[in-house]
Amino acid sequence: MRMTRLLVPTVKETPSDAQVVSHQLMIRAGLIRKVAAGIYNYLPVGLRSIRKFENIVRQELDRSGCQEVLMPVVQPGELWQQSGRWEQMGPEMLRFKDRKGTDYCLAPTAEEVVTALVRDEVKSYRDLPKNLYQVNTKFRDEMRPRFGLMRGREFTMKDGYSFDVDEAGALRTYDEMYDAYHRIFRRCGLKFSAVEADTGNIGGSRSHEFQVLAQSGEDAIVQCGKCGYAANVEKAEVKRINLKSYDTLQLPPAPVRTPTPGKKTCLEVAKLLGVGTSNTLKAVMYLVDAQLWMVLVPGHRETNETKVKSALKGQLIRAAESAELAAAGLVEGYMGPFGLPDVVRGKVKILVDRTVAEAAPGERPWVTGGNEADHHFTGTTYGRDFKADTVADVLTALEGDVCGRCNEGTFAAHRGIEVGHVFYLGTKYSAPMRCNYLDDKGAEQAMVMGCYGIGIGRTVAAAIEQNHDADGIIWPMALAPYHAVVLPLGAEPELMEAAEKVYKALQDLGVEVVLDDRAERPGVKFKDADLIGFPIRIGVGKRGLKDGTVEIKLRASKDVQLIKLEEAAARTRALVDEALKV
Amino acid sequence: MRMTRLLVPTVKETPSDAQVVSHQLMIRAGLIRKVAAGIYNYLPVGLRSIRKFENIVRQELDRSGCQEVLMPVVQPGELWQQSGRWEQMGPEMLRFKDRKGTDYCLAPTAEEVVTALVRDEVKSYRDLPKNLYQVNTKFRDEMRPRFGLMRGREFTMKDGYSFDVDEAGALRTYDEMYDAYHRIFRRCGLKFSAVEADTGNIGGSRSHEFQVLAQSGEDAIVQCGKCGYAANVEKAEVKRINLKSYDTLQLPPAPVRTPTPGKKTCLEVAKLLGVGTSNTLKAVMYLVDAQLWMVLVPGHRETNETKVKSALKGQLIRAAESAELAAAGLVEGYMGPFGLPDVVRGKVKILVDRTVAEAAPGERPWVTGGNEADHHFTGTTYGRDFKADTVADVLTALEGDVCGRCNEGTFAAHRGIEVGHVFYLGTKYSAPMRCNYLDDKGAEQAMVMGCYGIGIGRTVAAAIEQNHDADGIIWPMALAPYHAVVLPLGAEPELMEAAEKVYKALQDLGVEVVLDDRAERPGVKFKDADLIGFPIRIGVGKRGLKDGTVEIKLRASKDVQLIKLEEAAARTRALVDEALKV
Repeated sequence: MRMTRLLVPTVKETPSDAQVVSHQLMIRAGLIRKVAAGIYNYLPVGLRSIRKFENIVRQELDRSGCQEVLMPVVQPGELWQQSGRWEQMGPEMLRFKDRKGTDYCLAPTAEEVVTALVRDEVKSYRDLPKNLYQVNTKFRDEMRPRFGLMRGREFTMKDGYSFDVDEAGALRTYDEMYDAYHRIFRRCGLKFSAVEADTGNIGGSRSHEFQVLAQSGEDAIVQCGKCGYAANVEKAEVKRINLKSYDTLQLPPAPVRTPTPGKKTCLEVAKLLGVGTSNTLKAVMYLVDAQLWMVLVPGHRETNETKVKSALKGQLIRAAESAELAAAGLVEGYMGPFGLPDVVRGKVKILVDRTVAEAAPGERPWVTGGNEADHHFTGTTYGRDFKADTVADVLTALEGDVCGRCNEGTFAAHRGIEVGHVFYLGTKYSAPMRCNYLDDKGAEQAMVMGCYGIGIGRTVAAAIEQNHDADGIIWPMALAPYHAVVLPLGAEPELMEAAEKVYKALQDLGVEVVLDDRAERPGVKFKDADLIGFPIRIGVGKRGLKDGTVEIKLRASKDVQLIKLEEAAARTRALVDEALKV
Repeated sequence: MRMTRLLVPTVKETPSDAQVVSHQLMIRAGLIRKVAAGIYNYLPVGLRSIRKFENIVRQELDRSGCQEVLMPVVQPGELWQQSGRWEQMGPEMLRFKDRKGTDYCLAPTAEEVVTALVRDEVKSYRDLPKNLYQVNTKFRDEMRPRFGLMRGREFTMKDGYSFDVDEAGALRTYDEMYDAYHRIFRRCGLKFSAVEADTGNIGGSRSHEFQVLAQSGEDAIVQCGKCGYAANVEKAEVKRINLKSYDTLQLPPAPVRTPTPGKKTCLEVAKLLGVGTSNTLKAVMYLVDAQLWMVLVPGHRETNETKVKSALKGQLIRAAESAELAAAGLVEGYMGPFGLPDVVRGKVKILVDRTVAEAAPGERPWVTGGNEADHHFTGTTYGRDFKADTVADVLTALEGDVCGRCNEGTFAAHRGIEVGHVFYLGTKYSAPMRCNYLDDKGAEQAMVMGCYGIGIGRTVAAAIEQNHDADGIIWPMALAPYHAVVLPLGAEPELMEAAEKVYKALQDLGVEVVLDDRAERPGVKFKDADLIGFPIRIGVGKRGLKDGTVEIKLRASKDVQLIKLEEAAARTRALVDEALKV
């Protein structure tokens, strides 16, 4: 492709509304253009990367026995009513009526459509399992679309759905998809981690997020240095955390009422009393399915709402409000599990974090709220002075915590961008939508489902977040829009001729190559080549040509080689093949 | 692919709501399923044909120097307001507001988005021409969606848009696209015709429809047997038609007032007076941009509204209503160009079809309306008795008409399905949307545009309309979802083993093949193979296996060959290659 024919409008200025690097670079390198908030045109060069990724996805899914289908973008509201999600979905689901007044929505996902399809077309255990996917446009009317392709409103998603006869089959399929996802992201040349994720309300037991590791990632994840267990911090099982040990045993025969006038936070109280913040207990109040819960964690750590919800198998959860605390007789800022009047204790259930319940002798007792203004108790001990209705792991995991899977290693922290998600669904959709089959005894059974998503544009954006420098994008070869660019560094006819010769030779070897045939200065061509991020740059200059050589420069390593003009194409081909090896 | 894994739910019954063959067969063969009116799921086998066609389209467009982009399905109303089409488009354009109350529509096409893109990103004559296309979902909220993929609401379209510095450049691009479209439909193995089409209001001079020839086609087209000129009957230039000659010269010195009580139609009047219907003149009244026009054509032929509109360069045209005729003083059923009172003549303009104006002496005079109830004039002659404000070719062309291009050959009639359209747009969009460039003198000029569409699903449906029999689809090889199917005709282990062997050998040779491994009777497998329309069927039966042979049957010719099992794969590969040669 000749640069003069290509619509690749590079710009120098960083667009003012682009906050993250991938968004900035995709605009600057002429890969995308905004049409409206969260809605983009994909220009030719950007679309090539997108298509390459889509093809990798297709190849690996097809290899796993999946079948591609295409479901509508405009979906009838009726199907969403059958699943009960017409009411559940928020304003992110864009709804409208057609000219006849019938309800429709723009597909945010396709569980309903695919479940109805399989329900209507698959009847027997003999026809199962089935694993269907599509690569198609989705729309979510985000309140604040941002970060370019990372959180757009219209976007391309690969969404897949599996149907099995039973849980064992569904979990086998889940594992196949888990493996396929590994192959997909490995082939892209990305550093990523498959982390266990919270399964929310679905009730299934398995869910993994595929996270592309990048400092700018929205998601916090931890990974055990010993057993390799990785999880979102909202899900990661924590065995033990660092708690400050007392120098000497501090256990009084009973908790001691201690004045702490005006000190409400754990930090203030710890300072006043001269103990570590980790020696205080933080009481966080939640309303879970209308029951008031006091959640107790070490004062220096954060309670994780997702973990609390999961531990209590709650459907609805939120922080309790001041009025609700007062109504229950609780004294905000001074709440604790010891010394609660019976009438109050009857209204409140207590969840104790496992690190509190299992703290070593030297790490307790705790300072707890006095349940009256301006007072705390010191010397409070779990078991003796207060009991729990539930003990559970509810801390947001942090670097240094002891892994709850192997109970030995400690966590390292990473940041990630979620690009894929595999999910065991069970019968969440098949049961209400009556997606049943007849088993070998003729009995009707609900199919057992899984769903599997990959954000197409999001992955390409994440690849840029992970692979760039101050000059521009550093594409992994598998996602690069083109493998190489040929730069004639001057307008002399012999330069252009030599460049055309290399260009032609590269094309003959099947290298995807751009010839920068613009009448621009070498500096402009260099800058654009780095910005767009061609993995291999072949400079054809006057000085080199005297010796019959051209310069091959690798975008990633900045490695430079002088190569005989006649050998440049073969060398480039070899570099491409090497880089595409998985 | 194994049939047991494939979701291809064939059905015996013809669905009641499917009126055309392609719709019936796509449902019966398990290629598509309806989700809502005019909205379909594409199942795996159907989607394969769709994707194959998309890839042929992409390859040929890329070869012509086009660049693929992807524009949004959800488009901001603002852009449509800039072009003026927000108001012009009818309820087929589905409009809605997002959660913030901003106007959006579902893309019925993308002239606005692409023109805004090129306007914003391309500034100089040096960067032109540009030719962009996308393959993407479109939505048109048809009042009566029907015929399956032929006239759906949600559908996939390839829409392309070119931008040139001047008309000469734009017409060159037009010709390139015209050639690319020929290559595309030829590669699909379709019988088609590129016919001249009406350019409507756009004012450009060139437009061709690509019509797949099929008896069930909605469009009527004619083609000259001598010069090859082909056009939609609404556009085809007619030089001469068959008119009944009088045996003797019939020209009285002046028109003769003749009673024709109760006879209003040309047929009735001709019968009563003993002349040919072609010897009468039909007066059809139109309101064109608020001017009343009497259009005069031979009584046995149809006036074509599109031709009238084009001849008069009208913007708005419709048949005049009875009340409007009465108000102008016209007598419905007895209208004619002779004997019109001056006051009426002042309100009516007259358009005479060229076949009337140029009729041979033996073919006239005409019987014309008497402009009073129950009377006609006989012996009326154009030129002497009435004059025209305009003479133009306004007949719907028919088989047997003399070609208006070469003035010699006669037309043959065909029916076609419009699957592609190339259109010279001029500055229709670039002018109002200010899509300008700077020419080599630094002066601002409007870009000159063309647009080029191909209905993706429509073409695949048209291929079925053209290629089927009572048993099912007869895919052209290039569009076939799979090249071949292997049928083990029995459940004996040695049969299955032999079939697996052939299946494996075919896969090794890159043949796209399905193994029908279902536990079904041979009859069921034969029927499904014919219905789905695999071009090559390889039957592995007990009798043949005794001699070490299998049966290769071609779906199209029904040709049957017995082939050594070891040679079956190579033979099939050769048949596929032969069929894919363009």
